[in-house]
Amino acid sequence: MARKAAIIGGGVIGGGWAARFLLNGWNVSVFDPDPQAERKIGEVMANARASLPALSDVPLPPEGKLSFAGSITEAVEAAEYIQESVSERLELKHRIFAQIQQSSHGVPIGSSTSGFKPSELQQGAADPSTIFVAHPFNPVYLLPLAEVVPSVKSDPQLIENAKTILREIGMFPLHVRKEIDAHIADRFLEAVWREALWLVKDGVATTEEIDEAIRMGFGLRWGQMGLFETYRVAGGEAGMKHFMAQFGPCLTWPWTKLMDVPEFTDDLVDLIAGQSDAQSGHHTIRELERIRDGNLVGFLRVLKDRDWGAGKVLKDHDKMLEANLPAPKAEAMVMAHMQVLPGWIDYNGHMTESRYLFAGSETCDNFLRLIGADMDYVKGGHSYYTAETHIMHLGEAKLGDRLIGSVQVLSADEKRIHTFMRIQKGDEVVATLEQMLLHVDMKAGKTCPASPAVLAKLLPIAEAHKDLPRPDAAGRHVGQRK
Amino acid sequence: MARKAAIIGGGVIGGGWAARFLLNGWNVSVFDPDPQAERKIGEVMANARASLPALSDVPLPPEGKLSFAGSITEAVEAAEYIQESVSERLELKHRIFAQIQQSSHGVPIGSSTSGFKPSELQQGAADPSTIFVAHPFNPVYLLPLAEVVPSVKSDPQLIENAKTILREIGMFPLHVRKEIDAHIADRFLEAVWREALWLVKDGVATTEEIDEAIRMGFGLRWGQMGLFETYRVAGGEAGMKHFMAQFGPCLTWPWTKLMDVPEFTDDLVDLIAGQSDAQSGHHTIRELERIRDGNLVGFLRVLKDRDWGAGKVLKDHDKMLEANLPAPKAEAMVMAHMQVLPGWIDYNGHMTESRYLFAGSETCDNFLRLIGADMDYVKGGHSYYTAETHIMHLGEAKLGDRLIGSVQVLSADEKRIHTFMRIQKGDEVVATLEQMLLHVDMKAGKTCPASPAVLAKLLPIAEAHKDLPRPDAAGRHVGQRK
Repeated sequence: MARKAAIIGGGVIGGGWAARFLLNGWNVSVFDPDPQAERKIGEVMANARASLPALSDVPLPPEGKLSFAGSITEAVEAAEYIQESVSERLELKHRIFAQIQQSSHGVPIGSSTSGFKPSELQQGAADPSTIFVAHPFNPVYLLPLAEVVPSVKSDPQLIENAKTILREIGMFPLHVRKEIDAHIADRFLEAVWREALWLVKDGVATTEEIDEAIRMGFGLRWGQMGLFETYRVAGGEAGMKHFMAQFGPCLTWPWTKLMDVPEFTDDLVDLIAGQSDAQSGHHTIRELERIRDGNLVGFLRVLKDRDWGAGKVLKDHDKMLEANLPAPKAEAMVMAHMQVLPGWIDYNGHMTESRYLFAGSETCDNFLRLIGADMDYVKGGHSYYTAETHIMHLGEAKLGDRLIGSVQVLSADEKRIHTFMRIQKGDEVVATLEQMLLHVDMKAGKTCPASPAVLAKLLPIAEAHKDLPRPDAAGRHVGQRK
Repeated sequence: MARKAAIIGGGVIGGGWAARFLLNGWNVSVFDPDPQAERKIGEVMANARASLPALSDVPLPPEGKLSFAGSITEAVEAAEYIQESVSERLELKHRIFAQIQQSSHGVPIGSSTSGFKPSELQQGAADPSTIFVAHPFNPVYLLPLAEVVPSVKSDPQLIENAKTILREIGMFPLHVRKEIDAHIADRFLEAVWREALWLVKDGVATTEEIDEAIRMGFGLRWGQMGLFETYRVAGGEAGMKHFMAQFGPCLTWPWTKLMDVPEFTDDLVDLIAGQSDAQSGHHTIRELERIRDGNLVGFLRVLKDRDWGAGKVLKDHDKMLEANLPAPKAEAMVMAHMQVLPGWIDYNGHMTESRYLFAGSETCDNFLRLIGADMDYVKGGHSYYTAETHIMHLGEAKLGDRLIGSVQVLSADEKRIHTFMRIQKGDEVVATLEQMLLHVDMKAGKTCPASPAVLAKLLPIAEAHKDLPRPDAAGRHVGQRK
């Protein structure tokens, strides 16, 4: 039985929360009186379905059920987690919390507020202990950060439970220990925003020039290390103290105009909106969203491959998903679900050929993990190496296609596994890969028998697959007549 | 004859400039009285050699010659570009410019200053018109941004020439039209740094928590879109005006402490240095540099694959490199130079098997481009598709290995190319790939003869390769006895 989350407020942020819960198998009930809410959530869901599954190397659970509630009471009924994402008006939030707490007791109520402190949110509440800040970042379905801010009135155990739920939907709950206006990240965003407004207003730079100054330089640094770790490296072997000694004196130089707030006139709004149109107006917002999401998926996959930063969060999430997978059966086994990402296609608009082997490797790696030839096994000095591969390119995968990879074991003995893998788009086989894997003693650099534990899992599968029809493409050489 | 650049000041920044010029084929003369300069530059060069070539899909020219000059006069002799990267002391910079201009006339003199305006740098100079700001970002050999800031006394043509040189070494010169303290990007860095110091000082967050707040959220956004484009998307279909209407009122809220500057006491320095040690002290600075560089190469490759942001700069740089390549000869042709990056290795520490096919694809793509089956050709509706591939896994490539990919044409006719590619680590062949490529009419979805122009390039190569020894592995099927 799927768990239920209630989403109060269904804009871009509420929709992002809904998407995270739904794609991680939760049922979601949304309350939003806006007649456009269903359409808006649908658009966020389309973006999320096209990007979030690509972050996972483990099949996601079946998508949860999305429903729209006619009242807050209906939305929160039987919900295990409640997230509020309405406009930044304190009295509105207070009213919503009061309605929630008329029928829901002891359930975590996270608020997406970017500015209010939890103690402000809790004012006048029937039960202040369940209300806290869970501040996400757009796009909520891709960026892992959620600033979790409790107040002194919060229930510490409830906060820990909420953090566990956030991790289960792939997020990184950053526990902010002292409540403060705008929490942590938005204080930085506010500072940069103010300074940027001055630069535009004073004619120093356009919106486009400012964006280039960010994304061609320090923006790339900040996606993988933050401020302090970046500067620690910049300080060289002498480290952080050395860096601070260099930077320290500049602190008193009048480099920023942050002591003052620019007046928010119509002229300034028009100036910025006009420059922004000139910069980005040739793309629709939907196009920009898809470009952004593709870029973010690419960055996150890089970090996952490198086991660093946000990539570690993705790996931990995979482990949680894996623990809940059903046991595999002895038949041609679906071992991988993939989606063709923007970076996977070539100038023909098709999946590049190396991605077919990549898809095969993903499938094979998951199979090896299944039979116990996993990370720990490799650490023990043994592994399977691929000796030879034959690929048939039979069809075309295109951007957005969902692919599955399955394994048929043609034969196996103590030292070898002869596999045949199919990469399929629905029922259409787009490629097959025949491989010979050799079990090796990595230190000695030569083949040796696999461990009894691995063979105990592998050989029964090979036995069961013995009677499966032998694929036509098995045993082919390049250029052979059909 | 290689062109020459003079680098005055050989620290982390000067070393980064030297690396960019050297790896793009310029000779570099460094002047730095520090007896450690040679070691320091050597360390930066090692990092740069391990990362910068991985950004390019076109062979870089042979590395230029690095020399260390005993005087400024010697360093700048015959230099076509001069970059100053000494400490941020104005009178020191003035002295250096005076020495340079005693012997060098009319050559661009860029300054790496992060704080001074060009008019300040030009004070008292024999020729103010050649001195300007060219402010890079660490690591200089990977991040494309260079803020180019002239003053009213600058020679506009000299500034344009300098921007062309910066593009030739792979950078993105951002022309800052109005001089201002700290140019553009460092004003943002200063603002964030100040706010971060307050948060640490007030005990709201540690250095690690602040870094997570950046790199798990908005840092990822800023590597691919800047501030304004990100917010434009956040505003939804209503666009920038709508976003500003939402954000506007917050401007007057007291969210930041930027109106005030934290006192830079020993206690604060110790607090931050101690937290930074706890956060990152388990890595040496050299390790962190390599981790950072690997992450940045990954991000930049993602953006290049997606033809977006900094990735466009890399593509433009490839085109410049390609225009200068020597004409190919009719023999087994080296078509690609690659390096095994951190993201290319598996848990065995070896290059993942799909990367062997990736290396083959890179090699093949460059070959196809060479015979004229390039992007424009594909836009015209024709392309070569890979029908079949056979791979022999013969050796192991490991992290940091430099690989070359060569093409031997086994046979070719109007519709087909039968190739044999070798992926080599020095003289050792680590993999071979045999492929059948079919020329297709993409609209009709069937094979057809290649264009006369393509065949005019392809068939002479096939003819010349006819007499090359036929590789043993050609024609093999998986599992065949040797």
